[in-house]
Formats: sequence, structure tokens, C-alpha cells
Amino acid sequence: MTEGSDDIQALIALMARLPGLGPRSARRIVLSLIRKRAGQMTQLAQLLDSVATSSRECLTCGNITDRDECAICTDPARANGEICVVQDVADLWALERGNAFRGRYHVLGGTLSALDEIGPDDLGIPALIDRIHRDGISEVILALNATVDGQTTAHYIADALADSKVSVTGLAQGVPIGGELDYLDDGTISAALRARRRI
Amino acid sequence: MTEGSDDIQALIALMARLPGLGPRSARRIVLSLIRKRAGQMTQLAQLLDSVATSSRECLTCGNITDRDECAICTDPARANGEICVVQDVADLWALERGNAFRGRYHVLGGTLSALDEIGPDDLGIPALIDRIHRDGISEVILALNATVDGQTTAHYIADALADSKVSVTGLAQGVPIGGELDYLDDGTISAALRARRRI
Repeated sequence: MTEGSDDIQALIALMARLPGLGPRSARRIVLSLIRKRAGQMTQLAQLLDSVATSSRECLTCGNITDRDECAICTDPARANGEICVVQDVADLWALERGNAFRGRYHVLGGTLSALDEIGPDDLGIPALIDRIHRDGISEVILALNATVDGQTTAHYIADALADSKVSVTGLAQGVPIGGELDYLDDGTISAALRARRRI
Repeated sequence: MTEGSDDIQALIALMARLPGLGPRSARRIVLSLIRKRAGQMTQLAQLLDSVATSSRECLTCGNITDRDECAICTDPARANGEICVVQDVADLWALERGNAFRGRYHVLGGTLSALDEIGPDDLGIPALIDRIHRDGISEVILALNATVDGQTTAHYIADALADSKVSVTGLAQGVPIGGELDYLDDGTISAALRARRRI
């Protein structure tokens, strides 16, 4: 029992399993929490407990919320005609931080993957297509990762909507802001060159 | 309110203040906890709460424990004549993982620092000297960091014990196991050269 007490060891072991952490960083975090006695640890425990019991998926879009429908789905100020399809809640949060999109979202919760045997039904793609038709959506923005699985999923959804009047778009590919050509991969450079525009 | 709910935002903000974490990694951890609903989050909340209420400093050595005296101080199998002085509980844990020392410890909780106005009384060095004399310690191992502040503290303690019969030692300095000379700093190389030994 090196690390103080059984509870401290269990806490370190649990923390070490969190993404991006390991035994070393978990020990460091737990020690810092124990040292700063000003209630930070109790506060963290209370928040974790409250989030664990109250958070669930938005019934409409799949975002994480503490109510039946998330703040974005219930916001009357947002545009109803556009829906942005993302792979993950983290992607939705990233787009919201960008503050560029004022429509609604749909979280797939993954991508199609032959390897992992994830098909359209596992991702609720039929339900998404239904939602698009039911809500009278005019533009579907497929904000999926620029990976093979992400783009496969984008093409599948675009195909499923090909016969409808819905306009299906994807994020632009090119040089990221602040990016230096010398450090970019060949794929990005050729994509940016193909999509060149007049300035 | 981008990130789900007020509680989720507060949790991310609190997590982002932990050492080694930032807003990005905190978001990633919180999302992963919300996704894995199998009680990991509740378990984490319970452990944090239990550690927050039960953990305190060992009255003898300053290690973190859930009792009055830590498991090392109360272990009858450990040698009583040797005391290893460390800066921090994290250092004690590191030495215990190394499994090379079977004596007792003393945690200073910091180093002497003129800049931060930390003197011998702030670190309880008089109490340490008392403990060394009272417990009839024969060897004091100063396992302090090889930094300016750490070595200043080591010299201060060694001076305070100069008139007694206690043998005062420090950790060896040299090439770390697996270390390549090419990547080591000049100070370490010259220390290792000065302390060279017959093989």
C-alpha cells in the first residue's frame, strides 16, 4: 500500500484509465487535489455525481443535455432549414465554439465501418433521413472527419438523399488558418490546389 | 451554453485547472465519462468524495494516509535507524515504487527558498532534527531534487546535523539507467565522471 490508502490507489487507478492520462499524470492530479484542501475535490465529486445522474442524449439530435431536448434544438433563434451532421458530440461542441453555424445538428455517434461491423442502422441513418424529410430541411451539411470512414459515411448519406431536393454539402478542404505549406501533407496541398479560388 | 449543461461546463472548467490538463483534454475526459455510462463517473465521484474526507497527513512523517500514522510509519518490518528525507509525497511514492529503501521517511513539503520566503521553520526542519535525535536515527538520506533549492535545503539539514553522530548521505548523481551520453547535459556527465568507480 504505497500510495496513502486503498481509496487513493483506487482513485489513481480509475483516473489513469481516462483518455490522455496514465498512472503518472493520475498520481500527479490526485496528489494536487489532496494538497489543495479548499474543497476542490469535494466540488469535483459533486459535479461528477450530478453530471452522471442528469446528463443524457437529446432525443432529437443526440447532443448531450440534462433535459429531453438540448439547448440548441429548443432555441427559437436558430435556423430550422439547415442541419449539420457530425460524427460526435465533441465535433458539435467544436463547431459551436467556431460560432459560424446557426442551424440545427444531428450527432451520428460514429461512422460506418466495415471492419467494426457498423452499418447505417447502428448509426440511426434511416432516422436521420426521416428527420430531414419531416422537418423540411433544405440543406444538409456533412461535417464529418476527413478520414476514410468519415468520407464513406458522408457519401452514403449523400447517396441516400440524392433523389430528394435537399442540398447536401460538405466542409471545404484546404490549408488551415495559420498553416505553413512546408508542414502540410501532400493530400491537403493538392486538395487546396484543386479547390483554389479567385482572390 | 454550448457544452450540454451548466454542470457539464462547470465540470470541464474545474477539470481544466488540474495539473497537466487544459480545456481540450478536460472536454475529452468529461465526454468519455459521459459516454461510458457503466458507473465509472459515479465511482469516480464516490472515490473523490471519500478521499477528500478521509485523507490527511501522517502525524509522524507527513505522508498522506487515512489514519493518524501512515502504513510506512506503523510497519514493524521496516528499519528504524534510517530516515529518508524527501521534498514531497510524490517523491516518497516514487522511492517506494523503486522498492530499494526499507527505512522510514520524512516529507518536508517543499524546499528552502529565499525568493518565496520559505525558511527552515516553514518546512518543520527543527521538528525533523528533534525527531532524528529522539528516534536515535543513525543515517539520514537526503533524497532531495538535484535542483538549486533542493541542494540548498540538503546542505542546510546536513549543517544542522554536523555536530551529531548521525551519518548524513545524499543520492548518487550520475548517468540514469538507459541514458545515452549524447543526450545528457554537461552537468550530469561531469558529475558522473567525478564520481566514477572501478568496475
